[in-house]
Amino acid sequence: MREIAIIGIGQTPVSENWEHSIREIASEAIFAAMLDANRERVEGLFIGNMLSGLISQQEQLGSLIADWVGFKSVEAFKVEAACGSGAAALRMALMAVASGMLDSAIAMGVEKMSETRGVETTAALVTAADADYEAAQGLSFVAINALIMQRYMHEYGWQHADFAPFSINAHANAAHNPFARLQDPISLEQYRKARMICSPINLMDASPTGDGAAAVLIVPAETLHHTRHETGRPLVTIAGSAAATDTLAVHDRKNPLWLSAAEKSSQKAYKQAGVGPDDIQVFELHDAFSIMAALSLEACGFAERGQGPQLGLSGEICPSGRIPIATRGGLKARGHPVGATGVYQIVEVVQQLRGQAGPTQIDGAIVGMAQNIGGSGASIITHILKAN
Amino acid sequence: MREIAIIGIGQTPVSENWEHSIREIASEAIFAAMLDANRERVEGLFIGNMLSGLISQQEQLGSLIADWVGFKSVEAFKVEAACGSGAAALRMALMAVASGMLDSAIAMGVEKMSETRGVETTAALVTAADADYEAAQGLSFVAINALIMQRYMHEYGWQHADFAPFSINAHANAAHNPFARLQDPISLEQYRKARMICSPINLMDASPTGDGAAAVLIVPAETLHHTRHETGRPLVTIAGSAAATDTLAVHDRKNPLWLSAAEKSSQKAYKQAGVGPDDIQVFELHDAFSIMAALSLEACGFAERGQGPQLGLSGEICPSGRIPIATRGGLKARGHPVGATGVYQIVEVVQQLRGQAGPTQIDGAIVGMAQNIGGSGASIITHILKAN
Repeated sequence: MREIAIIGIGQTPVSENWEHSIREIASEAIFAAMLDANRERVEGLFIGNMLSGLISQQEQLGSLIADWVGFKSVEAFKVEAACGSGAAALRMALMAVASGMLDSAIAMGVEKMSETRGVETTAALVTAADADYEAAQGLSFVAINALIMQRYMHEYGWQHADFAPFSINAHANAAHNPFARLQDPISLEQYRKARMICSPINLMDASPTGDGAAAVLIVPAETLHHTRHETGRPLVTIAGSAAATDTLAVHDRKNPLWLSAAEKSSQKAYKQAGVGPDDIQVFELHDAFSIMAALSLEACGFAERGQGPQLGLSGEICPSGRIPIATRGGLKARGHPVGATGVYQIVEVVQQLRGQAGPTQIDGAIVGMAQNIGGSGASIITHILKAN
Repeated sequence: MREIAIIGIGQTPVSENWEHSIREIASEAIFAAMLDANRERVEGLFIGNMLSGLISQQEQLGSLIADWVGFKSVEAFKVEAACGSGAAALRMALMAVASGMLDSAIAMGVEKMSETRGVETTAALVTAADADYEAAQGLSFVAINALIMQRYMHEYGWQHADFAPFSINAHANAAHNPFARLQDPISLEQYRKARMICSPINLMDASPTGDGAAAVLIVPAETLHHTRHETGRPLVTIAGSAAATDTLAVHDRKNPLWLSAAEKSSQKAYKQAGVGPDDIQVFELHDAFSIMAALSLEACGFAERGQGPQLGLSGEICPSGRIPIATRGGLKARGHPVGATGVYQIVEVVQQLRGQAGPTQIDGAIVGMAQNIGGSGASIITHILKAN
């Protein structure tokens, strides 16, 4: 299998973008990635998106976006795995180029959530859960996560405030990311007093949705003649890529507090990359809710079972800590345009490995991981990137 | 790139299946394919589907279906390219296995259309068109195809009845396919007197939607030790696979009567397979509307521009003709469960190449082609299969 390099990255600010349609938002990220890669064409376009049908009454995003950006006749598809759609699209693009079928591709994620022509956002998001056995009971997506957090606190004895560092770190880091939706740092007091959404999840435990797109341009590393010296930046390659699923409905899991698909996909990715948790210097995880950050850290081997919050309390998740997370704001503060998020994470890890992460740069980072979660842990895709 | 074989096929009857949910319909096709292949597990599941969000209020079909069929933790994704979703899913599965990332995969298509929890079917189907520039004008999907047919008749001088053979052939062949939705042959008289849907498209020009699922199990051919002698059937391999896009909106095309993405994807597939139109012995094309059958035949090199209907009038599209199409009923009579259709086509070509096509078997068929179209020609995926 050919080694694949990410040679271009692009993203739009996550925002309520009332001025632009989904095709326009997507094109902004694509053009940025192509400019960054100094390429004028690609052979394929793989688009992670969850909600274009329900919200924009638009399917077939592949030809819509390929056409709009002028990729005349280039093959293009939409890939969906709920909030894991972005990383799923990268994995498809990776397979396409690694197989030799294509010699270049853009993997992107895009979501337009602020302006709905169809169902209301909460109704759209719950399609990530089991329609027959979860949504039909009246559970919203945040309610499912609230049940998990409640049970976790009960099982392991944590208090609500113990989750505060996840949110505080994310907001502090986002303050230095011009693409982040929420660029204001928050205090412990603000976290504690935030409006309750669905107990025990308050507003500061939940990531904001938004409109946004992110894109990466990949090619086989063997085709590149440039070196770090020529481009002035290291070459970032995909050292590991793996995906796994779990039951869609949380109540069908043996242990609803363990993300088995995170464990399985991270273990596979570690093996491919020839690394372990100790080698990961930056980890963009899927902190859609603060409980999810804790569970991801545990399932990927950074904390003992039930001990994820301790990493936050001891400062180890901060840029200067042992395992920095949400270094550009994470889902919590950069924002969570659902089907785009997985590609934002990849863009951010590339920034870290290139040394382009500004004040929240992790010194000397050469191995980074991104993990994107669909549903409440049902589809999990893990990528490990390396700077060469 | 590894050569890939299709070793298992499965399908459900296309019908109004009020008894079963989308996961149940999907599982029936998967189990049939696994039984046919004599395999108990696979490493990946790629699901073509267009409308599960809009109609069943269910996204994340990957983990939903992987979970339901007991593919514990197997990676699974949904792929969408409107009515081309099925073949798109096969192409993704092919890339996954050809790249060496997986050693086996199921590509499937599934659609549940009869029972909607969301929008009405016509409103759901028009999401295949351009929401901002086509649907917003009040055009339905059938209306777009009617405009194309009207213009085609005007440009090339055909009468409505000249398209009758496409429908008559499809119905005649479906009479021998137990999985077909419409198993009654029709007469020229019935075609001519059929109820008008959107002039000039009448009921006999339009394919029926439906509920259905089809699945194929693929593995690298190099891993197979069995021969034709051992299994009693030839080994079917994927000799060509290509996809291309066109503008999403038909009015943006230089020539709305030419399927450029069909031309481009078929030319690529021919080249990969080392064949040309003259070598294709059976062609499962995308006859969602009779005009589409004519346009596909032309773009793929079987008829001169504007002369597609002549192949029907001279009997060349029948099982005994030069280029048999819709040999198991096609979209017109087997039925068109939109996101599943592309995989039904593949299943049917495999049946032909194995000699399992019953009364409509094409004698000595060893090279077959399937072409799946998303939208009115915006996403087109062509596969060429060979019997070895």
